[in-house]
Amino acid sequence: MKNGKVTIHDIAKELNIDSSTVSRALSDNSRVTQKTKDRILEKANELGYQRNVLASNLRKNETKTIGVIVPRISRHFFSSVIAGIEETAYEAGYNVIICQSLEQLSREKKIIDTLSANRVDGVLISISMETKNDSNLQVFHKTKTPIVFFDRHFDSSKTSNVIIDDFKSGFEATEHLILKGCKTIAHFSGPQELSIYKNRLNGYKAALEKYKINFEENLVINSKLMESDGVESAQKILAFDSVDGLFSANDNAAIGAIKHFKSAGIQIPEDIAIVGFSNEPISAVIEPSLTTIDQPGLEMGKIATSLLLSQINKKMEDQAPQTIILESRLIERSSSQKIQYQ
Amino acid sequence: MKNGKVTIHDIAKELNIDSSTVSRALSDNSRVTQKTKDRILEKANELGYQRNVLASNLRKNETKTIGVIVPRISRHFFSSVIAGIEETAYEAGYNVIICQSLEQLSREKKIIDTLSANRVDGVLISISMETKNDSNLQVFHKTKTPIVFFDRHFDSSKTSNVIIDDFKSGFEATEHLILKGCKTIAHFSGPQELSIYKNRLNGYKAALEKYKINFEENLVINSKLMESDGVESAQKILAFDSVDGLFSANDNAAIGAIKHFKSAGIQIPEDIAIVGFSNEPISAVIEPSLTTIDQPGLEMGKIATSLLLSQINKKMEDQAPQTIILESRLIERSSSQKIQYQ
Repeated sequence: MKNGKVTIHDIAKELNIDSSTVSRALSDNSRVTQKTKDRILEKANELGYQRNVLASNLRKNETKTIGVIVPRISRHFFSSVIAGIEETAYEAGYNVIICQSLEQLSREKKIIDTLSANRVDGVLISISMETKNDSNLQVFHKTKTPIVFFDRHFDSSKTSNVIIDDFKSGFEATEHLILKGCKTIAHFSGPQELSIYKNRLNGYKAALEKYKINFEENLVINSKLMESDGVESAQKILAFDSVDGLFSANDNAAIGAIKHFKSAGIQIPEDIAIVGFSNEPISAVIEPSLTTIDQPGLEMGKIATSLLLSQINKKMEDQAPQTIILESRLIERSSSQKIQYQ
Repeated sequence: MKNGKVTIHDIAKELNIDSSTVSRALSDNSRVTQKTKDRILEKANELGYQRNVLASNLRKNETKTIGVIVPRISRHFFSSVIAGIEETAYEAGYNVIICQSLEQLSREKKIIDTLSANRVDGVLISISMETKNDSNLQVFHKTKTPIVFFDRHFDSSKTSNVIIDDFKSGFEATEHLILKGCKTIAHFSGPQELSIYKNRLNGYKAALEKYKINFEENLVINSKLMESDGVESAQKILAFDSVDGLFSANDNAAIGAIKHFKSAGIQIPEDIAIVGFSNEPISAVIEPSLTTIDQPGLEMGKIATSLLLSQINKKMEDQAPQTIILESRLIERSSSQKIQYQ
């Protein structure tokens, strides 16, 4: 019992029986009587025996554990997805281990190593803002560990994705501002390597085009979309005094902008109407409340997990990767209720 | 290479060298030349060899992984603590695995089994509302895996805790309401098995006593303190029409109460002044903004992790458990600004 790790030999010795009997009892082998099993289990428990679940699962090649990698657990959207993941995984008898990349490629790499060392049965991932390709994930491809992307994904033929239609949502958000009377609409975007941000930007461009509004490169401000970035980006767009609308690719940056505009005496929505993205709880509570795109996080988590579990159980190689697109919707609130003619 | 798992034997075969050389090279043994090491590493990488970090760490008896168990990652307080944990752990070269109990004892038990099977080097835990004793954690005590509690803890002589002074904070919150002129103060509390809620309640009682206000059992409403519980509890205290103050043991229930009072036409703070607990971001944004107790989550996470790492590295048994109490503070906002004499 050195180092406090109790082995089956310690149990065998205490009970004065054979180690192989202990081993059989602990794996519920029918060759051991229930009475003996009970005695062994009781002693195992008493001594604090940690059944090496991992070692025994390694033989079966499964750990009944799913790894989840998200940029930040503190974002409501991601914690909703995780709630959906936990619900579906738990029902199927799987444990969930959550790791956050904090938007850093180097951390994402370390997490992948940890999950790989722990031999998780499958991985659900939404990539960091610094991740530009899927080279980090090769280790999972090579070991045929199923991966399902949610929200932030790569357009890869190898993996399944559960996403929303970011192009359509970007279009809808921008069209909403145009229909409310905005003529000069700025856009806060994220890193263009991430297809979600590229698609939201393309949706914005397409809406401008439909309504014959010129696209101006200067009105697109790229950042990491933190609240503080929203403040800075808001300062930048105020240089263009004709701006009367803003579509932000997330709520956090939109909220930074709202706070900055309020402190600068700019009226929302009268001077500038605003639409965010993600429906963070704070967007319903801030004054004025923020019009935003609601993403079905809980449903996304459930569906991504079902997909992953079916790949784990059917041994992925037989299954063609698929992309599932969920419905998102615009939630109208005060920040975009421009009165057009008074 | 069946099942996609590449072994050292596969690498040896491909390079036509001995397996033992591969093994030595991968553990960076000085008996292998750098040139050979490079060749082996390259081939290992090419084949997608997963070095069994776990198996090799098991020999060293460490995994360089810390397990974190929290009730809910979606609470700002817990995600702040986790941010502090990640920062300190990452600097020290440790990976962090996060699991949420969702306030359920059964899930907490499963998580403990998973973390134990994965042989984490140490555990940071804030217990679920259903957890009434530390029997679940025996497996860690027996294997001498260090545990540090943060926030929700047991008063145990075996483990270290990093907490705030909940009694003092409960006293301060209640005294604040009394000094603002409240005469009949209700209290929303959580499960009394958890010392944090018992201590906040005791602080509330002590403040009433100091100002010679009778304690009334009926004015204490116990629940799980979700936002919906706050709505229900608010309905209950309205049965006492003399209530003019409310101290809620968390912000979520306080926010449920604010929403209910607003919809019922009750003025805050004029009719009922309110103080919450935890300083969730929404408490600064809701109208009226919520007076609350700020807990230093980030600092708590950092200190708890430092304590855990020192126990991991010094092999706990030599160290007496300690309890570190961090400063919390009342943040005055609109919900308690009763004008006493106009």
